[in-house]
Amino acid sequence: MSKFAWVTLTTNDTYSLGALVLAHSLRRAGTAHQLAVLVTPSVSEAMRNKLKDVYNVVQEVNVLDSQDAANLALLSRPELGVTFTKLHCWRLVQFEKCVFLDADTLVLQNCDELFEREELSAAPDVSWPDCFNSGVFVFRPSVDTFGKITEFAVQHGSFDGGDQGLLNQYFADWATADIKKHLPFVYNVTAYASYCYLPAFKQFRDNIKILHFAGKLKPWLIQFNSETKSASTPSEYAHAHDLIQLWWNIFCDNVHERLTDEMQS
Amino acid sequence: MSKFAWVTLTTNDTYSLGALVLAHSLRRAGTAHQLAVLVTPSVSEAMRNKLKDVYNVVQEVNVLDSQDAANLALLSRPELGVTFTKLHCWRLVQFEKCVFLDADTLVLQNCDELFEREELSAAPDVSWPDCFNSGVFVFRPSVDTFGKITEFAVQHGSFDGGDQGLLNQYFADWATADIKKHLPFVYNVTAYASYCYLPAFKQFRDNIKILHFAGKLKPWLIQFNSETKSASTPSEYAHAHDLIQLWWNIFCDNVHERLTDEMQS
Ligand SMILES: O=c1ccn([C@@H]2O[C@H](COP(=O)(O)OP(=O)(O)O)[C@@H](O)[C@H]2O)c(=O)[nH]1
Ligand SMILES: O=c1ccn([C@@H]2O[C@H](COP(=O)(O)OP(=O)(O)O)[C@@H](O)[C@H]2O)c(=O)[nH]1
Ligand SMILES: [Mn+2]
Ligand SMILES: [Mn+2]
Repeated sequence: MSKFAWVTLTTNDTYSLGALVLAHSLRRAGTAHQLAVLVTPSVSEAMRNKLKDVYNVVQEVNVLDSQDAANLALLSRPELGVTFTKLHCWRLVQFEKCVFLDADTLVLQNCDELFEREELSAAPDVSWPDCFNSGVFVFRPSVDTFGKITEFAVQHGSFDGGDQGLLNQYFADWATADIKKHLPFVYNVTAYASYCYLPAFKQFRDNIKILHFAGKLKPWLIQFNSETKSASTPSEYAHAHDLIQLWWNIFCDNVHERLTDEMQS
Repeated sequence: MSKFAWVTLTTNDTYSLGALVLAHSLRRAGTAHQLAVLVTPSVSEAMRNKLKDVYNVVQEVNVLDSQDAANLALLSRPELGVTFTKLHCWRLVQFEKCVFLDADTLVLQNCDELFEREELSAAPDVSWPDCFNSGVFVFRPSVDTFGKITEFAVQHGSFDGGDQGLLNQYFADWATADIKKHLPFVYNVTAYASYCYLPAFKQFRDNIKILHFAGKLKPWLIQFNSETKSASTPSEYAHAHDLIQLWWNIFCDNVHERLTDEMQS
């Protein structure tokens, strides 16, 4: 069994749909490593069983909350406080090294080479690129590190109220210390923002390894016509239509039929 | 006399207003180094005289054009082909090392430490952060390098039709080779885009050294009320109001009174 694992997090049955599609995208890309998902008590028993079909490890954790409403309001994303729960990933000490992936990511190509990187490796965030985006990062599970980061969180909070601000404050030399810890952007391409610079997107498109549906518009929130099997992408995201469609194709092929009727609604 | 220089480019009397404000912002920040501006034949004689008041070197160059209409159309910025003219900066061999600044940048704090960096140092671009933004970069003038880049341009073109695509193709290992060549983002903060991540902007605001009004909305295009001395920022850029106002304050204090009546209109 591999000592390496891909790790994600879901705190409800909706994000769990993302986690299911993500896991199937990893399997399709032929990863040699294990899959682990952290779930909070609010994830239903039925959903956990679906997760167990494709994840090697389904680990229950409690909710950690940044409770920083003011900063999250600046981002207009009050729900992100719960992303502190991500920190539990450092407690998966049965693994030597892991890659955390947000539940709203989609793996397009095999990325097993990421496990050659050291903690903390991550790709730049598109809106403030001296911060890394915390949707994809390489880390080394350690109870000691978990304790240090949560201690740091209590003392300093997070400048954005979410895990991204916190992790950037803790791993504060990411921008300046070691180029090897800068994952190429193709490992965390923001599906919507990258279209601000269409020529670059066109130029590097075939190299994209991991897509990230960062922001409010998650693929599972988009209308999907189950007869024509096509996603009704809102016009302002027309440029991202084929990426959203790809997410839904994996959902239809690998996830949907295995859901119960209740979960399908 | 310093062997180092700040260099910008203007191809018309409008961008020249930006170049004038930029130069005054450098002087206000107390730079110890020289100021040079490249001008094309279409910059008026009167404007060149104004530029000479504040620039040590006003150097005429011919227009280089990428003539790549297709890619520029993707960016909806057909005017950017002319930015190839920027390449002439490598011919300023009277200087040992230079920092190129777009005419739509504004220096907020002394940045003379940039001359300790090597060619080619630049900050990440917000939309595809494995590309550097070519609005601020450290380079070493050299006729040899000028020849190599223009030769490369003829052979490969530019993936975005502008100087940014070209320079990123030429200095292709920027993203992966040397962290010292990654200028901190505070040396090239995109005035509008950074507001996508307001908490980061708040967190790092006091550290911002150079602002860049990248994109279509240049400060000189914004309505300005000369009685109240305030800029009428369009509502979608309300967040950037004080930065636009700052540009206009420098314009009023240092540039406007020295323009002829004709230029003022
Ligand atoms: O209510 C929530 C919010 C977030 N998450 C997890 O935290 C990650 C980060 O949140 P999100 O992806 O929504 O943030 P963004 O990438 O849009 O900034 C998600 O992908 C999930 O793995 C979750 O499980 N439940
Ligand atoms: O018509 C033009 C277009 C551009 N420029 C010069 O090229 C730089 C890059 O263009 P711009 O700043 O408009 O591009 P952006 O930063 O918006 O991508 C400008 O700052 C000017 O120095 C110029 O002189 N005339
Ligand atoms: Mn995400
Ligand atoms: Mn510019």
